[in-house]
Amino acid sequence: MDFSSKLLENAVNEMSQLPGIGKRTALRLVLHILKQPERQTEDLSNALMKLRNSVQFCKKCHNISDTELCEICSNPKRDASLVCVVEDIRDVMAIENTGQYRGLYHVLGGKISPIEGMGPQDLTISSLVHKVKQGEVKELILALSSTMEGDTTNFYIFKQLEGTGVKTSTIARGIAVGDELEYADEVTLGRSILNRVPFEGSFNNN
Amino acid sequence: MDFSSKLLENAVNEMSQLPGIGKRTALRLVLHILKQPERQTEDLSNALMKLRNSVQFCKKCHNISDTELCEICSNPKRDASLVCVVEDIRDVMAIENTGQYRGLYHVLGGKISPIEGMGPQDLTISSLVHKVKQGEVKELILALSSTMEGDTTNFYIFKQLEGTGVKTSTIARGIAVGDELEYADEVTLGRSILNRVPFEGSFNNN
Ligand SMILES: [Zn+2]
Ligand SMILES: [Zn+2]
Repeated sequence: MDFSSKLLENAVNEMSQLPGIGKRTALRLVLHILKQPERQTEDLSNALMKLRNSVQFCKKCHNISDTELCEICSNPKRDASLVCVVEDIRDVMAIENTGQYRGLYHVLGGKISPIEGMGPQDLTISSLVHKVKQGEVKELILALSSTMEGDTTNFYIFKQLEGTGVKTSTIARGIAVGDELEYADEVTLGRSILNRVPFEGSFNNN
Repeated sequence: MDFSSKLLENAVNEMSQLPGIGKRTALRLVLHILKQPERQTEDLSNALMKLRNSVQFCKKCHNISDTELCEICSNPKRDASLVCVVEDIRDVMAIENTGQYRGLYHVLGGKISPIEGMGPQDLTISSLVHKVKQGEVKELILALSSTMEGDTTNFYIFKQLEGTGVKTSTIARGIAVGDELEYADEVTLGRSILNRVPFEGSFNNN
C-alpha cells in the first residue's frame, strides 16, 4: 500500500498489528477515526494506555481486577473450597453469565502450547498448586478448551497435584443444549454418549 | 457483558466504537494488547493521536497529506488538466495502484446521501467547481461508486459545472477483467453491453 501521508501510514501499521486486522481493515478504521470528533480518539488512546499502565491481576485467582482481590474472590458468599481452572478472563465471563457457578476461579493465562512457545512456567500453574497445597481447596474443575493443548494442560496440572488429595474433574463435553444430534460432530457425540448422566441429574444443566 | 475491571470495561467500550468491532471482538483485541509489551500500546495510542492532531489535507485535491500540497499535486510530471473525482483516499490508492492514471485527483470526502445526512455542503464540491472555473482543468473523470448516492452526486456535480465547458466522463462499468459473463449481475452486464468499446480500444484497459 502506498500512503499519501506518513502519519496515516503509521496509524494504519500500528492498527494492523492487532490480531485479525489486516491493512485494509486498519485503513477503514483509521479513516473512520479521522471523521469522528478529536475527543473520541483521545478517549480510545487514553483508555488503552490507562489499562496497559494500571492493569492489576487478582493475587488469588489472577483474573484482571482493579483491586488486589477481585470481586469474586472477595465475595464471602462464594464457595472458596471449589475452584474452576480456566484459560482466560473470557471464560470467567462466560461461566459467570450462566449464573450456575458459585465457586471461585483460577485463571491460567493460556494453555501449554509448544508451538506458541507457552510452557507451564508461562502460566499460573505453580500458584494453583501452591493454593491447593495450602488446603482450602477441596475440588478443582478443569474447564480448559477441548483441544490437544487443553488436554495436555489438564494432564500436566493433574500430575502436579498428585498426592494432594484434591478432587479433580473436567467439565462435561456433549451436545449443546438445543442442538440437533445429526449436526453434532462425531467426537462430541461419542463423548456425550460415554459421559451420559443419570436422567434426573440432567435437569440441573439447563 | 460483566467486566471484572472498570479499566478493562472502558477500553473495550472505546474499542467497540469502531465500525464493525463488536464487544466480543473488542475484548479479544484488548486482551491481546495486554499480552504485548507496553511499548506497543504506546505506539498505537501515539500514532492515532498524532494523526488526529496533525492531519492535513492537500489544499488542491483534499487528499490526506503531510504537506500543504500532496505528492501527486506537486509532481510536475502529472497532467494537471485531467482531474479524477473520487469519494475518499482509498479510491486514490486503488487508482494509483493500477499505474494507468497520470492526471490529478479531487477527493470529495463522501457522496451526497440524505439518509446519512450528507449534503453537497459537506463535500468539497464548491472547491471543485471553483478549480474548474479557474480554467486549468480540461477534463473531469467522475469515479464515484455505482450506487444511487454516487449517481446523485455525479448529477449534482454535472449540473454545477454547466456552462464551464469542461469535458466530463464517468469511469466505465462492466464485467471485471477475468470474470465469467455468466456470474455477472444483470445490471452490470447490461451496462457493459450498452457501453461497449471499439475492439482496439479495449487493449488499453487491461
Ligand atoms: Zn480473584
Ligand atoms: Zn493534492
